[in-house]
Amino acid sequence: MALKDLFKQELKVVNIGLASFQEALHAYGTKSVHVDWRPPIEVAGPAKETIAARESDITRANAKVMEIILNGKPCLVGLDQAMHVIPGMTRNTILHAGPPVTWERMCGPMRGAIIGALIYEGLAKTPDEAEKLAASGDIHYAPCHEHCAVGPMAGIVSATMPVFILKNEAYGNFAYATMNEGLGKVLRYGAFSDEVIQKLKWMETTLYPALKAAIQKLGKIDIKNIIAQALHMGDEVHNRNRAATSLLFRQLAPSIVRTCADAETAARVLEFIHSNDHFFLNLVMAASKVTLDAARDIPHSSVAVVMARNGTDFGVQLSGTGNTWFTGLSPVPDALFFPGFTKDDANPDIGDSSITETNGLGGFAIAAAPAIVQFVGGSTQDAFNYTLQMYEITAGENNVYQIPNLNFRGTPTGIDVVKVIRKNITPFIDTGVAHKKPGIGQVGAGVLSAPIEPFRQAFEGLARKMSEAGK
Amino acid sequence: MALKDLFKQELKVVNIGLASFQEALHAYGTKSVHVDWRPPIEVAGPAKETIAARESDITRANAKVMEIILNGKPCLVGLDQAMHVIPGMTRNTILHAGPPVTWERMCGPMRGAIIGALIYEGLAKTPDEAEKLAASGDIHYAPCHEHCAVGPMAGIVSATMPVFILKNEAYGNFAYATMNEGLGKVLRYGAFSDEVIQKLKWMETTLYPALKAAIQKLGKIDIKNIIAQALHMGDEVHNRNRAATSLLFRQLAPSIVRTCADAETAARVLEFIHSNDHFFLNLVMAASKVTLDAARDIPHSSVAVVMARNGTDFGVQLSGTGNTWFTGLSPVPDALFFPGFTKDDANPDIGDSSITETNGLGGFAIAAAPAIVQFVGGSTQDAFNYTLQMYEITAGENNVYQIPNLNFRGTPTGIDVVKVIRKNITPFIDTGVAHKKPGIGQVGAGVLSAPIEPFRQAFEGLARKMSEAGK
Repeated sequence: MALKDLFKQELKVVNIGLASFQEALHAYGTKSVHVDWRPPIEVAGPAKETIAARESDITRANAKVMEIILNGKPCLVGLDQAMHVIPGMTRNTILHAGPPVTWERMCGPMRGAIIGALIYEGLAKTPDEAEKLAASGDIHYAPCHEHCAVGPMAGIVSATMPVFILKNEAYGNFAYATMNEGLGKVLRYGAFSDEVIQKLKWMETTLYPALKAAIQKLGKIDIKNIIAQALHMGDEVHNRNRAATSLLFRQLAPSIVRTCADAETAARVLEFIHSNDHFFLNLVMAASKVTLDAARDIPHSSVAVVMARNGTDFGVQLSGTGNTWFTGLSPVPDALFFPGFTKDDANPDIGDSSITETNGLGGFAIAAAPAIVQFVGGSTQDAFNYTLQMYEITAGENNVYQIPNLNFRGTPTGIDVVKVIRKNITPFIDTGVAHKKPGIGQVGAGVLSAPIEPFRQAFEGLARKMSEAGK
Repeated sequence: MALKDLFKQELKVVNIGLASFQEALHAYGTKSVHVDWRPPIEVAGPAKETIAARESDITRANAKVMEIILNGKPCLVGLDQAMHVIPGMTRNTILHAGPPVTWERMCGPMRGAIIGALIYEGLAKTPDEAEKLAASGDIHYAPCHEHCAVGPMAGIVSATMPVFILKNEAYGNFAYATMNEGLGKVLRYGAFSDEVIQKLKWMETTLYPALKAAIQKLGKIDIKNIIAQALHMGDEVHNRNRAATSLLFRQLAPSIVRTCADAETAARVLEFIHSNDHFFLNLVMAASKVTLDAARDIPHSSVAVVMARNGTDFGVQLSGTGNTWFTGLSPVPDALFFPGFTKDDANPDIGDSSITETNGLGGFAIAAAPAIVQFVGGSTQDAFNYTLQMYEITAGENNVYQIPNLNFRGTPTGIDVVKVIRKNITPFIDTGVAHKKPGIGQVGAGVLSAPIEPFRQAFEGLARKMSEAGK
């Protein structure tokens, strides 16, 4: 669906038998319609019947998953280099965003970021050398998500890159993400020039030790608290992180000043964070990952614990289906493009940042951040409508993350693939857009609805697993 | 009107002939009513007829005033001690909030703050000594507003207190305000214990030089820009300044680090600002003052340029009536009281902070900060309604300060006393509540509607002046 159509159309809020939801809509003046019913998505084989027959098992499992998600307590507890903390990380491992993908099928910006990472690691001296090595079979590629990690856009994590360490204090598990590089020519959008590598080196040698010492002094930083506050301050913490970055900055600054060797270093570190309103993005991603990872592997659950794109495929994992990836082709986002670029330049949707939506944030909380919708030509009411629609496909509402504009209602949380298929409504995702060629970088930002295929696969996969288990 | 009534009642949005406004209300689902008409306030003599006859003069004058207000460009350009920069300030001058008031008529918290200021200045050694001096006739009292200054709550400014210097870059005028002391026992709420004085001394000897040097290095800070951003981040910049304080903090921190003599001092200065979400309040007040002062003395204008309370009287000044104060008794605010306190402990409304509402912020922009209304028991829709009602009594809408929740509509700006009287709607104000006895401090926070009397006086005063000028 074209972006302008998304906004110009009356939003199709399906309201079947949910009277309380209808009332909520009326309270905010939203036009909801009973008649505008969408046919459910067709699924293969007896999946529909299997799922229908096991509805109570699914409901019970989803309640358990929701409890774990809502109890999650993500805290930033430190930083270290990837190879020292990320499970299974080796010198020649490269982690990437989204589901598994071979070098041959990788998109341009992911290839560009890998070229940059190999140069950054000293494994190659030139882009040509790096490209040869990348294709040689000597590099082990794996999804971040399979190593307790997440990465925005290309999502590349290599051995010596410093990563934030997030701990879920309620369940004891950990998650990891690199530090956000800021805007302009950056690795995550597939750029790999000297300037990109030099900035990464400065981050490793100056920013990383400063943050590590500051957080050591503070003990930990409660990321859940910052996210909750930021939702009251116009962020949805995916495409807008100005408030969250500001709150983090305030907490970090005195400690950075006390632990840095000299004032000028402290000032430069502060300026780097101050100059990038997206600095918090990687933290909210890791916080979402560490929250959702605790809710993996609950048998029968139809709630998504991963939704991620590698720029070629869009992948989903459900709590009830273990480590299986369900995939479909990743769509090219409709977006507002930077001057000089068009949709023809755009790579298909890429990045693990949709872990925020999987955790009920980002596009799911966009009513908290109408400025984003305005940016791409929509109204405040459009933003409200998007969030209201997401309640249709979620298993519950958050008890801590609230949306002031919807009278402090909890964010729609826990994407239920059964509802996605039955209601034919896919998740709404905020996103950045990378150029499809390696080495160029960001060309726009926008919003999109997830493709239906990975959810159809997931629905069928869950049904298959349940009928096998039932045998 | 009791606070709970304010929220429980359907809000009386008067809509007479303004079809576009009615449409705007419908767009946001607000219940507006044509039938719920309030009789205009009765005014003395021929004032009503005079104003009606000169309507076109008033409209023209108000357009001029609005142009000046909207063009205002408040910037923080430095700090200095009051006696070095505030016009007419002397060693034995004490500036206070609100309209003029004698020691005899001053309320408890204002007296308490003056006792504290005299001890702070070394003019008295004990509270008893200070009280005698305060009542002796040797101290010159004057409203902050008559010296290009503003102060929250008691609003006390004495000779050596450091003040922010705000410049209106569009018109060249200046305004001044002290630095915010934070919460707890503070002078502005009438506390004067050793702890209060010691904190003020620390602010003078450590905070002030640090901020002065940091701002000198930066050149200036664009306060209008911070206000505009903060309105997109859940602040109405009167009772909620978390976002604005955070944005200011981010701008200041690197410069503080570079200019402070040592890291520990820099860290403490940063911690002081970080610990106080209201740190920005005094800046937005001075920014509003410097914006509105440029719009003074436009003949025939019925727009308020001052709305201020001294804890005894509530005073108003209009652009069209020069330095005349129009006053009425200040009401005791309905509020949420801190544990152990009730409305019986509350002082009548006090402070110059209503300069924010006079500038279209605070209570006028409360739709941007529904968390405040929730805090006192109301809903998000109540917050929307309050702001929507304020469009009824304002001369225009801001072109820079916007409310995302109302589809980025400009804040209702420029209180028009003619509309206030004709529609019988008084300004809606956010406020803090001081204990009525000196030496205690804050007991609550809340919202209130301004009393009608000062506006009736102002309406009559404008009519008088216009009919005199017409002779």
